[in-house]
Amino acid sequence: MTRFNDRPLDVVGIGNAIVDVLVKADDAFLAAQSLNKGSMALVDEAQAEALYAASGPGLETSGGSAANTLVGLAQLGGKAGFIGRVKNDQLGRIFSHDIRSVGARFETPAANDGPSTARCLIVVTPDAQRTMCTYLGASVQLDPEDLDLSMVSEAKVLYLEGYLWDSPAAKQAFIAAAEVCKASGGQVALSLSDGFCVDRHRESFLELVDGHVDVLFANDSEITSLYQSPSFEAAVEEVKGRCQVAALTRSKDGSVVLAGDQRWDIPAYTLGELVDTTGAGDLYAGGFLHGYTQGEPIDACGRLGSLCAGQVVTQLGPRSQVSLKELVAKHLN
Amino acid sequence: MTRFNDRPLDVVGIGNAIVDVLVKADDAFLAAQSLNKGSMALVDEAQAEALYAASGPGLETSGGSAANTLVGLAQLGGKAGFIGRVKNDQLGRIFSHDIRSVGARFETPAANDGPSTARCLIVVTPDAQRTMCTYLGASVQLDPEDLDLSMVSEAKVLYLEGYLWDSPAAKQAFIAAAEVCKASGGQVALSLSDGFCVDRHRESFLELVDGHVDVLFANDSEITSLYQSPSFEAAVEEVKGRCQVAALTRSKDGSVVLAGDQRWDIPAYTLGELVDTTGAGDLYAGGFLHGYTQGEPIDACGRLGSLCAGQVVTQLGPRSQVSLKELVAKHLN
Repeated sequence: MTRFNDRPLDVVGIGNAIVDVLVKADDAFLAAQSLNKGSMALVDEAQAEALYAASGPGLETSGGSAANTLVGLAQLGGKAGFIGRVKNDQLGRIFSHDIRSVGARFETPAANDGPSTARCLIVVTPDAQRTMCTYLGASVQLDPEDLDLSMVSEAKVLYLEGYLWDSPAAKQAFIAAAEVCKASGGQVALSLSDGFCVDRHRESFLELVDGHVDVLFANDSEITSLYQSPSFEAAVEEVKGRCQVAALTRSKDGSVVLAGDQRWDIPAYTLGELVDTTGAGDLYAGGFLHGYTQGEPIDACGRLGSLCAGQVVTQLGPRSQVSLKELVAKHLN
Repeated sequence: MTRFNDRPLDVVGIGNAIVDVLVKADDAFLAAQSLNKGSMALVDEAQAEALYAASGPGLETSGGSAANTLVGLAQLGGKAGFIGRVKNDQLGRIFSHDIRSVGARFETPAANDGPSTARCLIVVTPDAQRTMCTYLGASVQLDPEDLDLSMVSEAKVLYLEGYLWDSPAAKQAFIAAAEVCKASGGQVALSLSDGFCVDRHRESFLELVDGHVDVLFANDSEITSLYQSPSFEAAVEEVKGRCQVAALTRSKDGSVVLAGDQRWDIPAYTLGELVDTTGAGDLYAGGFLHGYTQGEPIDACGRLGSLCAGQVVTQLGPRSQVSLKELVAKHLN
C-alpha cells in the first residue's frame, strides 16, 4: 500500500521542547500540591520552583509530547524532524543532544536570552499514573519565523501536539506549518494532548479537526471532552468521517482506530509490570505514524503503536530505553 | 552495642558533586572511544563534549560516589551531611535539590564562576557493567576553606571517596577534615573508589589506611591493586588488622568483612534482573555505615550493605528508586 510520494522525511513534529523531571510520590503529595491526577497543568517559574523544592529526588530525561513521538519514530527507523525552541543552557543542550542522537533532525536555533529551557515536573504515583506540571519557559518563544518550512514541505506527515495551543505564538506557527504542509501534498496529524487542554481550546480544535487534520490522536478523555460526549462510544460516532484516520487510545483497553467506514479494535500489549504511563500516548503515535508513513495497513499501524506504548509504560520516563526495532522484531514479525 | 556517643549527624561525606548522564551502548562503542570497561577515567571538558556527542540519548541523575552513599544512608533514616562543590547552574541545582530532598544536609556554597557542575558520562553495556568518564568541573574547586568543620566534628563517621585524591585541593580538604574528625572523637571511613585511582595514588592510600582510616571500603580489584597482591585472599591477609573494619566487595560473590581477628563472608542479594551496576559499591557503603552508626553488629552491617547494593543494580542509575526502608522491612526484619 502506497500512501505517499517519496519524500526525504517521514514525519516532522512541532512541539514544546521540554526536559522532564520525574519524581515518585504518593496521592497525598498530589493533594497537598492541589494537583489533578493524570492531567497536565501549566505553572509559572515560581510555581515550578516551589513544586520542585517540595519534591523528592528526580530523574531528568528529555521529553515533550511531540518530541517523544518523533524520537520513537526515529528509533523504529523512520526519518524524523522536530521543530521546537530550547534556550542555550544545560537543559537545552541535553534536549538537543538526545533528539539528535537518535538521528532526528532538530535545527531550530536555541534562544540566547529569555526564559530557560522548558521543564516538566512529572509526579509518578504508585499506581503508575503520571501527573504533570509544565513550565513552558523558552518553548513559548517559538513563532512563525522559527519554522523551517522547507523541512515541513519535505515531510509526508506534519505532526502537531495540542499543547502548543497554550502558546499564542506557537499556535500561529502551527497553523502556518499546517498550510505549508497541505499545499505541498503532505498530511497533517494532531494529538489532542490532554483533556484540560481540550477544554481550554475546544472551539479551535473542533474547527481544526474538521478543516485541517488527516490523522487524529486522542485518548478517551480527550475525545469525549472534544465532543462533550456522554460516553466513549458516542464520541466515536461523532469523530467518524471527520478526518481520514482517528486513533483513539484507551490505556489498558487498547485503542480504536477509525478510517472511513472501518473500525478496528486493537488490544493493548502487556510487556511487564506497569511502572509509569508517561509517554504512552506519545509512543503510540510514534509507532502508528511509523507504520502509516511506511504504507502499512491501518490495523498494523495500530498494533505498532500499541506495542510501543506497551513497552514505554514498563519503565520510568517517556522515551524507550530498549531498542524498539528489536521489540518489533520480537513481537510483530 | 554502642559504638558512638550521641552526635547530631551519623555520617558526613566529602566527595565530588556530580550529575550522571547514563547512556546505553555496546562493547564496540567502548572500544571505539578507547574506554576501559568498568573503570572511571577523567576527561577534560572538550573530551567530555566529544564523548557526549558520540553517545545515544541519556538519562540524567544526581550521582557522585560519596553523595550516593550519603543519600542511601539518609533514605534508610540516617542523619547525613555532604560536603562538595557544584556551580550555580542548572545541573548544580539538580544535584543540590536531590541530596537535600532526602533530608541530607548540604551547605557547601555553589561556585558562581569557573567551570560548570561536574558531569559523569556512564556507559552501561548489555552485561550491566558501567564505564565512567568524569569531567570534574566545579568539584575540583573544593578546598580547605570550603569545609564546614563544625559539621565534620558533629558526625560519628567522616566518609571520604578516594576519587578526591585526583584533585590536589580536594585532597588537602580531605586530610584537614580527617584530622578534625579524629580530634573530636569521630571515625574516618574511606572508599578506594576505583582500581586505576588506586594505581595513581597507591603510596598516599597505603599511608592513609595505616594512619587515619577506621573503616575501609574497597572492591576486589581495588584492594588487590592497593597491596599489589596476587589474589583477593592475599590482599585480605594484607589488610587484616590495619584498620578497625574492612568491607571488601566482590560483586555477585558478596563481600568479606574483617574486624580485628574476625571475618564474615556475606552473600550478595539477587533481587531481580541485573540492569546496571552503577552505584553498587556506593550503596553497599551507605547501608553498611547506616548499620555501623546505629551500633548494629558488624555482620548485620554487611548484610544491610549487601541488600542495598542488591537493589540498586536492578535499576538504571546509582540512587535507589524504591524505598530502602521498605526494602529492609521486607528482607531483614
